[in-house]
Amino acid sequence: MSVLEIDVDTKIAPCYRVHIDTNLLERIGPAVRQAAPAPVCGLVTDRHVARYYLRGVRQSLAQAGYRVAEFIFPPGERYKKLATVAQAYDALLAARLERTSPILALGGGVVGDLAGFVAATLLRGLPLIQIPTTLLAAVDASIGGKVGVDHTRGKNLIGAFHQPRAVFADVAVLASLPEVELQCGLAECVKHAVIRDQALFEFIADHLPAILRRDPPTLLELIARNVRIKAAVVTEDPFEQGVRALLNFGHTFGHALETVGGYGELRHGQAVALGMVAAARLAVSRRLFPAADAGRLQILLKRIGLPICQRRLDISAVLAAMQTDKKIHRGALRFILPVALGRAEIFADVTAAEIRAALATLDCAKAPRPSLRTRKNRAYR
Amino acid sequence: MSVLEIDVDTKIAPCYRVHIDTNLLERIGPAVRQAAPAPVCGLVTDRHVARYYLRGVRQSLAQAGYRVAEFIFPPGERYKKLATVAQAYDALLAARLERTSPILALGGGVVGDLAGFVAATLLRGLPLIQIPTTLLAAVDASIGGKVGVDHTRGKNLIGAFHQPRAVFADVAVLASLPEVELQCGLAECVKHAVIRDQALFEFIADHLPAILRRDPPTLLELIARNVRIKAAVVTEDPFEQGVRALLNFGHTFGHALETVGGYGELRHGQAVALGMVAAARLAVSRRLFPAADAGRLQILLKRIGLPICQRRLDISAVLAAMQTDKKIHRGALRFILPVALGRAEIFADVTAAEIRAALATLDCAKAPRPSLRTRKNRAYR
Repeated sequence: MSVLEIDVDTKIAPCYRVHIDTNLLERIGPAVRQAAPAPVCGLVTDRHVARYYLRGVRQSLAQAGYRVAEFIFPPGERYKKLATVAQAYDALLAARLERTSPILALGGGVVGDLAGFVAATLLRGLPLIQIPTTLLAAVDASIGGKVGVDHTRGKNLIGAFHQPRAVFADVAVLASLPEVELQCGLAECVKHAVIRDQALFEFIADHLPAILRRDPPTLLELIARNVRIKAAVVTEDPFEQGVRALLNFGHTFGHALETVGGYGELRHGQAVALGMVAAARLAVSRRLFPAADAGRLQILLKRIGLPICQRRLDISAVLAAMQTDKKIHRGALRFILPVALGRAEIFADVTAAEIRAALATLDCAKAPRPSLRTRKNRAYR
Repeated sequence: MSVLEIDVDTKIAPCYRVHIDTNLLERIGPAVRQAAPAPVCGLVTDRHVARYYLRGVRQSLAQAGYRVAEFIFPPGERYKKLATVAQAYDALLAARLERTSPILALGGGVVGDLAGFVAATLLRGLPLIQIPTTLLAAVDASIGGKVGVDHTRGKNLIGAFHQPRAVFADVAVLASLPEVELQCGLAECVKHAVIRDQALFEFIADHLPAILRRDPPTLLELIARNVRIKAAVVTEDPFEQGVRALLNFGHTFGHALETVGGYGELRHGQAVALGMVAAARLAVSRRLFPAADAGRLQILLKRIGLPICQRRLDISAVLAAMQTDKKIHRGALRFILPVALGRAEIFADVTAAEIRAALATLDCAKAPRPSLRTRKNRAYR
């Protein structure tokens, strides 16, 4: 299996390289040194990731000549908040970081977002090295420079754009990833497929067993295909003024579902899966998107193990949460709706009635089941 | 008196215009609407400024069609901290700002820095409108995109680069500015003069009486001359990788003096004045800078009413505070030293002994007095 390197050139920041390989963590010290040489580096991770990888990473960094300042916080989206950022500032400033010191984000999306925000705002911006340890972080969160933390009023409401200096995605790490984390990462892969790349949709459907048993070459190809899509989109539109908004497919519903669940009940990838189902159904009801494709989407999500309906859904609460969405533009929410498998568009004219109707279909008690008879031959692929 | 408009083009952000005029505040609504149209705007100011200008500004904004979300905090550098930023997030998110909503920073440097940091980090970046109400903010803080807050370990250690969308500097507002605030603004003007523009040094020396009695045409010219210098420097080097560092003349000593004073005893401009005196003496001791020019600098600062020596100076504490300076590079502090009136350079080889000796000269008990006999004719100009 060969190492893969994909360059991301957003023009607004220096071009950076995404390295995808096995056993990258063991060699992280020299790799970081090449990307961001400095006497000191800041290592940000959560307690869970630290248990597995901190010792090895710390040792490799020390051998490469770094003095390592560490900040370790409890795992979970509910710690992705300003109070944790304040603790990180205290810890890293106490360790005397310098302006050239890279901040290493070792972990999943939460670590990447929070450490990225710290890097964006400490000493007016430090080099950021993303070292994703989850599939979601490898294919999505670590690339593109969106960093930030949640606010009680909504997800990622406090944040910035801060492109990484380099990304190191170690495929070997995914072997020990909990099942649910793998599923959540696959939700974002499916999102990429639906908005931009039907071939990726077929790849996931065809190789799902190999993906789920963490076959390294299959994971490497999966990550590379997704990184290429994400890199192409953020290169085209680093500040989300146009095409990048497509990456929010499933996220307008999803963020609101997550907010109402209090960042604990539903994981991000699960909420995105539900959001994609709701958006697909809304698109079907507008006759934008074939019902059969919406069915294929649901079946794939279900095969992955992602939820496609939600118990005890408080529709009014979800609608209220949507009102604080960052993407509100002139009072109207913009929705990303699929128009084909592999293509999506932005719609600013979605009515409250349509949103309510789409959300209603997510209620497990009432949800329509995907018809297994349509496109029979492909249904279980 | 004609309105002055100076464009700042940092390349990394859209070009923005600095408007300098009298009675701009009365017309702020339409002016902001032209720069950043949106249904809602966020107005950030401190209680002191609010007492004078909030009603008028709010009314002008409402008449221009804005719904105004307000955040008002207590005046003073000690509120320029993360806890105040968190309160601003809460207040502005509660008022449902949108991604197009401008944040208006109505106030002095503290308001501009804090509101700017809020704008940089809320919803991943909102348009920032600087409306400086002090001389310091008009000539320095409002231009160039440096935003941030203090940390107990040092000034501006938490921050970002976020260029404003527009700057509106109302000269009329300076009529009611407290004496000490005017003096602090003049410290930054003198800084600009020493590092870049001898003609500005002579202008300040020649027109000091008119400046101190707030003569509007003189203030307008003073602000315009300084904005042009600041704009030229930040255009050349928006991220402070080169020439912009010259703007830190007096600030490496100054920040440390401020930190030791607990952000209360010494105002920023006063600390910068002391820092310039120390840096000038260090330069004289290296035979880089003529002693006569150091004398002229001290005399001008004294005429302005700025301190040139400090009582009960704890040199070791100041040295320790310098160790957390953002500008530390590979363990060494970089100092800006004048080499002529109107020219300064960056030095990375200043020794601890030199720093200690320069600081020692700031002690009021031991400070050398500027010789009034050198350059006799100019000494009191």
